[in-house]
Amino acid sequence: MRQPSMYLWGKKGFDPWRVRQSKPRTTGLTCVLDKGLGLTSFYDLLELASDFIDFIKLGFGTAGITPLPILREKIALANKYNINIFPGGTFFEAALVQGEIQTYFRTLADLQIKWVEISDGTIDLPLARRGEMIRMARHFGFHVITEIGKKEPGSVISISQLVQLYEHDLKQGASYVVIEGRETGENIGIYSPEGQVNTLYVEQVNRRIRPTHLIWEAPQTHQQVELLRIIGSAANLGNIPPDDILSLEALRRGLRSDTFFLWK
Amino acid sequence: MRQPSMYLWGKKGFDPWRVRQSKPRTTGLTCVLDKGLGLTSFYDLLELASDFIDFIKLGFGTAGITPLPILREKIALANKYNINIFPGGTFFEAALVQGEIQTYFRTLADLQIKWVEISDGTIDLPLARRGEMIRMARHFGFHVITEIGKKEPGSVISISQLVQLYEHDLKQGASYVVIEGRETGENIGIYSPEGQVNTLYVEQVNRRIRPTHLIWEAPQTHQQVELLRIIGSAANLGNIPPDDILSLEALRRGLRSDTFFLWK
Amino acid sequence: MRQPSMYLWGKKGFDPWRVRQSKPRTTGLTCVLDKGLGLTSFYDLLELASDFIDFIKLGFGTAGITPLPILREKIALANKYNINIFPGGTFFEAALVQGEIQTYFRTLADLQIKWVEISDGTIDLPLARRGEMIRMARHFGFHVITEIGKKEPGSVISISQLVQLYEHDLKQGASYVVIEGRETGENIGIYSPEGQVNTLYVEQVNRRIRPTHLIWEAPQTHQQVELLRIIGSAANLGNIPPDDILSLEALRRGLRSDTFFLWK
Repeated sequence: MRQPSMYLWGKKGFDPWRVRQSKPRTTGLTCVLDKGLGLTSFYDLLELASDFIDFIKLGFGTAGITPLPILREKIALANKYNINIFPGGTFFEAALVQGEIQTYFRTLADLQIKWVEISDGTIDLPLARRGEMIRMARHFGFHVITEIGKKEPGSVISISQLVQLYEHDLKQGASYVVIEGRETGENIGIYSPEGQVNTLYVEQVNRRIRPTHLIWEAPQTHQQVELLRIIGSAANLGNIPPDDILSLEALRRGLRSDTFFLWK
Repeated sequence: MRQPSMYLWGKKGFDPWRVRQSKPRTTGLTCVLDKGLGLTSFYDLLELASDFIDFIKLGFGTAGITPLPILREKIALANKYNINIFPGGTFFEAALVQGEIQTYFRTLADLQIKWVEISDGTIDLPLARRGEMIRMARHFGFHVITEIGKKEPGSVISISQLVQLYEHDLKQGASYVVIEGRETGENIGIYSPEGQVNTLYVEQVNRRIRPTHLIWEAPQTHQQVELLRIIGSAANLGNIPPDDILSLEALRRGLRSDTFFLWK
Repeated sequence: MRQPSMYLWGKKGFDPWRVRQSKPRTTGLTCVLDKGLGLTSFYDLLELASDFIDFIKLGFGTAGITPLPILREKIALANKYNINIFPGGTFFEAALVQGEIQTYFRTLADLQIKWVEISDGTIDLPLARRGEMIRMARHFGFHVITEIGKKEPGSVISISQLVQLYEHDLKQGASYVVIEGRETGENIGIYSPEGQVNTLYVEQVNRRIRPTHLIWEAPQTHQQVELLRIIGSAANLGNIPPDDILSLEALRRGLRSDTFFLWK
């Protein structure tokens, strides 16, 4: 973590509402989607914005097709900058359907990866097996993020089911639960085919669950704005494109028009 | 400025319509929106395309959350490549509402920044105060770009108001006036919610104001095409995404289909 | 080509359906659209993903406005990584309308470029002249990619015309024929104004032509998914944005939800 004096916002007149917690944070998390950054871009991004990145997800199965020297270097850099890095849930699901889940966990552990995602966006995963997977990951020494929601177009889950799964997963040992939004943020979960947020749904979830352990995937800027409006500056947001990290941080601090007077 | 011989277009057969002025230009300006490039990306972009970039705007308040060593290096690089760099107007507005405008100008001057943007996209700024801000910026030694237009979705300004503000700002000392288009180019000013250009509006403004000191924010390719069609190859265009600079330059030169026969 | 052992997918449990051919490939080609990458970004991309890139097109006329030292270095890098690099067809068309086609071919040959695109997306090119251009390019020692389709919004070509042109071009010496999709994949050829794929059209073409020498421009992810579904994992796809190469490769291998069970 750099000192605030390393930024203009650390100086008088440059941080309008002073709402932002520094790293390591427990809320206000920003989770980036890396769907194939080159190593120089990855390094460049961390040099610029590591103070504003809490998690990096190596999207879907891209970890499997990244040259190992580059993958290893990304993991080392993330660890150095205190960013939690992990492969997308689809990679976990691929290993599971092939009956290679032990190999999967062991390989990730060997790579110094410390977080894994347990999901059933594409495969069927009965509740008992879901719990077992979380506990197995914990047993291998991982912190666990689970994901709720199917990746099929138009798929939605009821709020009561969401709350139930959320409580189940935390109880089994998960640290965070992600609400599916995909890379596009369209026609999935809380997003209409045009990417509009189902604000009523978010408000109801927000009333029933403290947002501390929930992460909302919100790839589009106007979705981030909407979620920050409902949940507050410290909403945990995921699937943020690498190019939009400073933009989201500006939104969180009231340094962009859409949230300028929000924390006043 | 590189010599034309450093490009294929400097050679016979490679520059169809020869419409393009070299840097430093007074029209045909391309203004890039940097909403958080890493330092290597920034350098990489200037090495590639500095001949086609006249201004770089550090979008909204991102200058405040860029590590100072990186911010300083960006400014030094821009100055070296004869590109005018300045922070977005929202950063100015944030300083103003906090009563820290003197600190703001002094800090930017200390950073060797030579241009500032004066805007009221989010805050209220009475005309007298707007003029005062322009003059104060000039007094600090800055060149001034002002912006016309509110950032609120759907907001439009009448043509006569636009012309009046334009003349006011230049008279107070502004060098350029920007027409608001935001990062998206959707549901704002001349853009419909789907990003379609209000061509009638642009044509009327273009009839009443020589386009020399106007900059139209036009983030989407088809918007750039439309504005080049109406105003000509030398339209001043802003909020160009860094990835699209060569594309816009190709449009300006008739090296892309949409403008291929336009300057014939 | 790196060894499979350089990737996780080379290991047990990480390559679900094993459908993918290694480079040099004759089908399953991925053609990237470079519309202005900086040299570091270009190198960074090849270091990461050269095993999954078969062609790089320097979009439209961008080759003409890339500083020559950078252009030369891009060509050298592409050659080193066994990637075929070539300028977009619009650049060819610009040279042709100026009566400088010999200069064009000679200049590209001097630059060590080995592939050219022959197209009439913007200009008129009678069939006899089209054949002549293909043969002339071959005579200069180039491999030839031709393109079928006009760039005008909404333009479509009949399937029988497409098949005829395809056969004509191969007979005259072309190695591949590209179906126009532009950078956007919207309101052009097989794409509706919203970017939806005309699946019936693709299915019918796929029934009449073996897909080996056809390349479909498919810039958007859901378009890639649709074409892979119809044609199979080894469809040749073009105009892939640089950021999406690993994503497309994951789709081809069943490592992303949309194609997870497709090759089972």
